[in-house]
Amino acid sequence: MLNAGIEESREKPSRARSGAVVSCCAPLTSEPISEAAAERAARMFKALSDPIRLRLFSRVASHPHGEVCVCDISDVGVSQPTVSHHLKKLREAGLLTSERRGTWVYYRSAPGALAVLAILLRPQE
Amino acid sequence: MLNAGIEESREKPSRARSGAVVSCCAPLTSEPISEAAAERAARMFKALSDPIRLRLFSRVASHPHGEVCVCDISDVGVSQPTVSHHLKKLREAGLLTSERRGTWVYYRSAPGALAVLAILLRPQE
Repeated sequence: MLNAGIEESREKPSRARSGAVVSCCAPLTSEPISEAAAERAARMFKALSDPIRLRLFSRVASHPHGEVCVCDISDVGVSQPTVSHHLKKLREAGLLTSERRGTWVYYRSAPGALAVLAILLRPQE
Repeated sequence: MLNAGIEESREKPSRARSGAVVSCCAPLTSEPISEAAAERAARMFKALSDPIRLRLFSRVASHPHGEVCVCDISDVGVSQPTVSHHLKKLREAGLLTSERRGTWVYYRSAPGALAVLAILLRPQE
């Protein structure tokens, strides 16, 4: 779970899209991030640091049905196995969830993941 | 300029911390990000994908004086040249600005950069 993954000692609850309370971190602008939290957050940013992965994540997260079948992604300029590889990386970083149905795997945006990132990157008020 | 760097055809103005209007991108959740915008945004996320860089960015962005001298950072477990190298990467990604005064370089959070990232990562409403 992403939210569990970046829990902090001084965690503040925040309400995610799903309505679930996400235990999260302090914004990067409010206090220096701890070494442990930086290790975990850097993994999430690393998952978004590849243009193809970023496009795949956006494709899934913006889909009106809320999920995308791997079989429907063939227009990002890389092979199907490469698409699957990138989607797996996004899942491992906690940004997507997946479900296998028959032959294909379907991906959804992980609840709360973007909320956590948005809190981390909240500009100073 | 970061905000100029990820301008989109369907840009929407947004107000940054400074009060300046930032021409930005659509959230990743509202529509699939374009190939060009993904290239540019991925570079920003790449800058934050290293735990040391993330800690350095947070150190600068959360500093009560709004800026940090390279000479004051000696406790992140890497050498001074490595600190300078990472800060330069953050500057090149548009996340920090720098100013040399005499012997030392002082870093500040780039106005609007976090606002742009926060818009990109805004969870679906």
